[in-house]
Amino acid sequence: MSDLLRTRSSSTPAMQAVFDDRALIAHALAFEAALAKAEAAEGLIQPATAAEIVAACATLDIDPAALADEAALAGTLAIPLAKRLRAALSGEAAAAAHKGATSQDLAETALMLQVVEAAKLLAADLSRTCAALFALAETYAATPAIGRTLLQDALPIGFGLRLAQAASGIAGAARRLHAEIAAHAKLQFGGAAGTRAGLGGKGSAIARRMAGELGLAADAPWHVRREGIAAIAASLGIVIGALGKLARDISLLAQNAVGEAREPAIAGRGGSSAMAHKRNPTGCQVALAAALRAPGLVASILSGLPAEEERGLGGWQAEGPVLADLFLLAAGSAEAMAAVAEGLEVDEAAIARNLRAADMGEDTGESAAIVAELLAQCRKD
Amino acid sequence: MSDLLRTRSSSTPAMQAVFDDRALIAHALAFEAALAKAEAAEGLIQPATAAEIVAACATLDIDPAALADEAALAGTLAIPLAKRLRAALSGEAAAAAHKGATSQDLAETALMLQVVEAAKLLAADLSRTCAALFALAETYAATPAIGRTLLQDALPIGFGLRLAQAASGIAGAARRLHAEIAAHAKLQFGGAAGTRAGLGGKGSAIARRMAGELGLAADAPWHVRREGIAAIAASLGIVIGALGKLARDISLLAQNAVGEAREPAIAGRGGSSAMAHKRNPTGCQVALAAALRAPGLVASILSGLPAEEERGLGGWQAEGPVLADLFLLAAGSAEAMAAVAEGLEVDEAAIARNLRAADMGEDTGESAAIVAELLAQCRKD
Amino acid sequence: MSDLLRTRSSSTPAMQAVFDDRALIAHALAFEAALAKAEAAEGLIQPATAAEIVAACATLDIDPAALADEAALAGTLAIPLAKRLRAALSGEAAAAAHKGATSQDLAETALMLQVVEAAKLLAADLSRTCAALFALAETYAATPAIGRTLLQDALPIGFGLRLAQAASGIAGAARRLHAEIAAHAKLQFGGAAGTRAGLGGKGSAIARRMAGELGLAADAPWHVRREGIAAIAASLGIVIGALGKLARDISLLAQNAVGEAREPAIAGRGGSSAMAHKRNPTGCQVALAAALRAPGLVASILSGLPAEEERGLGGWQAEGPVLADLFLLAAGSAEAMAAVAEGLEVDEAAIARNLRAADMGEDTGESAAIVAELLAQCRKD
Amino acid sequence: MSDLLRTRSSSTPAMQAVFDDRALIAHALAFEAALAKAEAAEGLIQPATAAEIVAACATLDIDPAALADEAALAGTLAIPLAKRLRAALSGEAAAAAHKGATSQDLAETALMLQVVEAAKLLAADLSRTCAALFALAETYAATPAIGRTLLQDALPIGFGLRLAQAASGIAGAARRLHAEIAAHAKLQFGGAAGTRAGLGGKGSAIARRMAGELGLAADAPWHVRREGIAAIAASLGIVIGALGKLARDISLLAQNAVGEAREPAIAGRGGSSAMAHKRNPTGCQVALAAALRAPGLVASILSGLPAEEERGLGGWQAEGPVLADLFLLAAGSAEAMAAVAEGLEVDEAAIARNLRAADMGEDTGESAAIVAELLAQCRKD
Repeated sequence: MSDLLRTRSSSTPAMQAVFDDRALIAHALAFEAALAKAEAAEGLIQPATAAEIVAACATLDIDPAALADEAALAGTLAIPLAKRLRAALSGEAAAAAHKGATSQDLAETALMLQVVEAAKLLAADLSRTCAALFALAETYAATPAIGRTLLQDALPIGFGLRLAQAASGIAGAARRLHAEIAAHAKLQFGGAAGTRAGLGGKGSAIARRMAGELGLAADAPWHVRREGIAAIAASLGIVIGALGKLARDISLLAQNAVGEAREPAIAGRGGSSAMAHKRNPTGCQVALAAALRAPGLVASILSGLPAEEERGLGGWQAEGPVLADLFLLAAGSAEAMAAVAEGLEVDEAAIARNLRAADMGEDTGESAAIVAELLAQCRKD
Repeated sequence: MSDLLRTRSSSTPAMQAVFDDRALIAHALAFEAALAKAEAAEGLIQPATAAEIVAACATLDIDPAALADEAALAGTLAIPLAKRLRAALSGEAAAAAHKGATSQDLAETALMLQVVEAAKLLAADLSRTCAALFALAETYAATPAIGRTLLQDALPIGFGLRLAQAASGIAGAARRLHAEIAAHAKLQFGGAAGTRAGLGGKGSAIARRMAGELGLAADAPWHVRREGIAAIAASLGIVIGALGKLARDISLLAQNAVGEAREPAIAGRGGSSAMAHKRNPTGCQVALAAALRAPGLVASILSGLPAEEERGLGGWQAEGPVLADLFLLAAGSAEAMAAVAEGLEVDEAAIARNLRAADMGEDTGESAAIVAELLAQCRKD
Repeated sequence: MSDLLRTRSSSTPAMQAVFDDRALIAHALAFEAALAKAEAAEGLIQPATAAEIVAACATLDIDPAALADEAALAGTLAIPLAKRLRAALSGEAAAAAHKGATSQDLAETALMLQVVEAAKLLAADLSRTCAALFALAETYAATPAIGRTLLQDALPIGFGLRLAQAASGIAGAARRLHAEIAAHAKLQFGGAAGTRAGLGGKGSAIARRMAGELGLAADAPWHVRREGIAAIAASLGIVIGALGKLARDISLLAQNAVGEAREPAIAGRGGSSAMAHKRNPTGCQVALAAALRAPGLVASILSGLPAEEERGLGGWQAEGPVLADLFLLAAGSAEAMAAVAEGLEVDEAAIARNLRAADMGEDTGESAAIVAELLAQCRKD
Repeated sequence: MSDLLRTRSSSTPAMQAVFDDRALIAHALAFEAALAKAEAAEGLIQPATAAEIVAACATLDIDPAALADEAALAGTLAIPLAKRLRAALSGEAAAAAHKGATSQDLAETALMLQVVEAAKLLAADLSRTCAALFALAETYAATPAIGRTLLQDALPIGFGLRLAQAASGIAGAARRLHAEIAAHAKLQFGGAAGTRAGLGGKGSAIARRMAGELGLAADAPWHVRREGIAAIAASLGIVIGALGKLARDISLLAQNAVGEAREPAIAGRGGSSAMAHKRNPTGCQVALAAALRAPGLVASILSGLPAEEERGLGGWQAEGPVLADLFLLAAGSAEAMAAVAEGLEVDEAAIARNLRAADMGEDTGESAAIVAELLAQCRKD
């Protein structure tokens, strides 16, 4: 589905590229090449055979649409892909390609390669967001402003405290995501039933070599242990929720009756087809829409944990698209909120005016100290 | 994202076409044309002006990629689309285009036009599935077979009873979906704040004309009442779950140790990249993966119900893509299970052999009568 | 768990009573009594035997805690309950009790009896809410007020239009719930494998008699078709979401900077442990918390649809508590919002003041006509 | 709701006690006592005053039902609790009680105290489960058995490999839960608007003392950063899913047609009200039902992340009950599966017989080495 109109509104072109067909096919071929090289290094196949396979992987030109049709029928991408690879080879090389691997090995490893790339993209926008917010938080750490609880005026806070809390939440969520990906973006290599059979006892050694080649961590076969993917998904859901917290606050502050902060004016952004004068919080809209969609996606992945025996039926097959959706939403949200944070217009006069009207004094308590503590914590981690 | 590899595995090309960019743009232009015609019929704009707009809508050639980029920035499809429409017009027609409408009017109405088309596609495959299952159910209504509860052998059933129950569940779910769509696939037309202002009191009349033109039901503006969309989404979730029930049963019956039924052999389907002899329940896999993903998607849409005032921020914007995903998954599941039901291979010898081994007699109780009752119920509805 | 502190905050004592142990045991015994009577009427057991069973069901005093421990161990309530019933009987009556029924028959039927009672309770508070809202909506149908889209001031609306839209959403959701319960609150009676075996061909007749006795609809065994329960659950989720929409709007209007409406002052409600002057939107808080929890609960029930063969393992057992939670949350939300709607304090001066400040004129378009249409629609249904 | 019949089936009495009213009230009073002591230590109140408060907290006898009714009305537990505490005191002590704290401080801290206790309970059953599984896995590491993928016979595995994979998944999930709780079970202390105002700049010092007294970690106020609670919830969801994986496998192996393993026979467990001979996988049922419910609960907590400003409306109030439900389900599942793992009956003859019938040889590949690697990994962590 070439659903540009839908995905462009909720994600970024760069993240879409990470999960597009071209990238997936490239990763799948990288898997096959790494497998051949590792098997040659361990003496399972001839170096020349491996070289042929590697060369074919580097040059094979695959039409995504045709591959997709066959993959849909086969129920797995690996079968038509391996068929094409073998067709491009001959003799021993054709026989040796994909040796000892199974469809899920290829699918999981390709997904993990996408995860690693996606995480890098995301990290950049999350860092931008936090940096911009903390800078604002320090500036306004002790600026007295209305604090609001349960949507009612409560007592004063330092205006920057709210931003620092949001930034700290995003930074903590980003750290968790990073840690889970570092721990769980691993090569999957187990063969047909997850025993690494048919490799002359060299399975673990081959796996280690492949992991090194592909830049992933090595591990025992994990295809039936989906906890790592679930943790990555949940961490993404928390990142998206933390960005949603920021968006919620900005959109409330931007209400005309409040007016204490608002999104930057960007040409072409946030207009109304019916009211030309309006300035809509469109960045916040992207982040809040993502925050609404993410929990259900995380739930889907958790639902797949009780997989059947050596390869689940329906569960793990559902994870790839859902994990991709989570990254796509996270990217859209992070990019939108990075722009909002970097260009945030704070209206000090409105802040002061509202506070005076609320008649609650100006005691911001330990707001400034808390801002400093949150920032120090963030820098330390 | 041209994610053919992901969506082809879980949906059908026909359903993808219903929700692709081309279709969405066509529906959006149909909305603008219907609006112009209705406003002319009610005397708000000149017939000639309307004719110009209608003509432009019929011929406007819009590049989805460029439109998508601008829509993402604007936070709504309507703004760049209306801009293009106006650019294709001049004078009065340019000023009259999109008159009285707002972005959400266009977006919701286009979505409902997609829903109606999607429902038709889906209905066909659901009917095929039920018809095939009921035919088998009648054939094997009194064939004694092991009944299994909690995954343990229990007492005999008529083999057809299990199929009739699954068919009845699917048929009931299909009826609910049909009824909710009939009730809620409505034109949305409310204008900037949902009051139909600026139309000289002709708003309701214009809405009725537009609804007639577009083949949708008319109603008061419903943009802030999301219950209808939520009900359509939930009904889709139930359809997908009912198909999942069938898939669960077939996949259990197809276990090698059971072998009482299995998916038809289809060239290119259900093989293994590592084990050429294997026959995987690939149709069931598609349906079970959909059943795993649907509940979270339905939850997302329910989460958006508490929308803010006259147009929510984040909630309704999230619904379109999620509703589309539900239809895409439903289509993939229904097509897969229609093929499974129509080609289901029932192994009577295995059924009899298993039953004898279980030593539980052959009393199928009122199985045949229940099959007949379920079929009669289905025919009546 | 005697978790009064948790459940009182989110539900009502009356709804808790519908789903408490005492009620569940009473329904279970009513099932056993109805079964005995129906089997006697159909000649399967002696009238005197049935009378003994009915008498025992009427007088049996069961300790919930002890029953709960045994039920937890057994994995089903029916086993220890039937054991107690048989222990209170002797001879033929002891042998005849529970004849032809299975655990799930009892569990599902008892749940449906609770559903019917719960629905009545809920309907009353939903009606109160709608009636109060529509009365306010008519009063303020043409009162010019700021309309807000995407949390930004947009164009004027009639203040009553917002209330009428919320009321109409709740009324529509209530209708759907009522219809689904009328269609699906059915007796379940299928016996061990769902075939109504061992009843001499009288199974359907017995089922019809039992349904009549218990005030439920009759149907073929539906224990493996969970679509009806899923539809009830989804309808509850939609009701809770529609109430959440009202709560969202009231809480936004009650912000100090807006002040156009607020919850009634109720002694003991909405205070702050730290700020005595505050008036918190506590009714809205109950409704919004429910709206946050409901989607996940609905998703859980949808996840159970693909049940295994003649009785699922894990799926249907999860439904009872989740459906109960949905009713408990719906009751808490409906009661809270009924009180909010009936006592809503509308501040006309604030409405007018805010509108003047927004400088958007006073054209409320067709607001009054739309209010009238929504009310008429609601009365008709 | 005294819903013994519902909760006993899905949880354990010990975990119910952790989250019952008595425990919650005790934790709330412990919070008040720790607050008074810390404020005295920092010179904000007199030592004698603090001593009076501490003494009152130790002896105050509170009726949960009455408290629950008032808390429901107030929208928070803290108000009626602090009222009772003050009523038990006089003069300065009455004025000093709860000084500088807000409702959410008390509620979050009490919840975290429950979380810490709950985690200890859970850890014990998870350890038991893993230990028993790994012991079995080592015994059967090289026992040739059918490996099954997509519910179809695939290639041989070592029978113990499947158990080791399940154990490793549970152990990894348990580690994550432990780490998240260690990082996020923190004292919450921020006062009315989260600024620690009114404490003479001693807020942080008081918070550190309270945290020490209560055995929790200290931090800046985190009431608006819900990521930690979300991570605990998600980790619980993953634990429940990992237990569900084990339950799925055991229930499939226990099918009569497979018979390779089954739950231990426990008096009163797993019977059928209609079929006395049946042995149902009741422990697996508990775990699979929990695995079905957990994802939706996690989604609910993720949905609450975008909380409004200094205290959300509806979001955080929904978290306590949901987090409690997750712990209750996890406890029920872990206890059930610990018993299953410890008493698992492995039928070696059936394993061998099935394998011979499948005619797939006996090459278990590197199964034994992978079992050893998974066990070593688990011991290291």
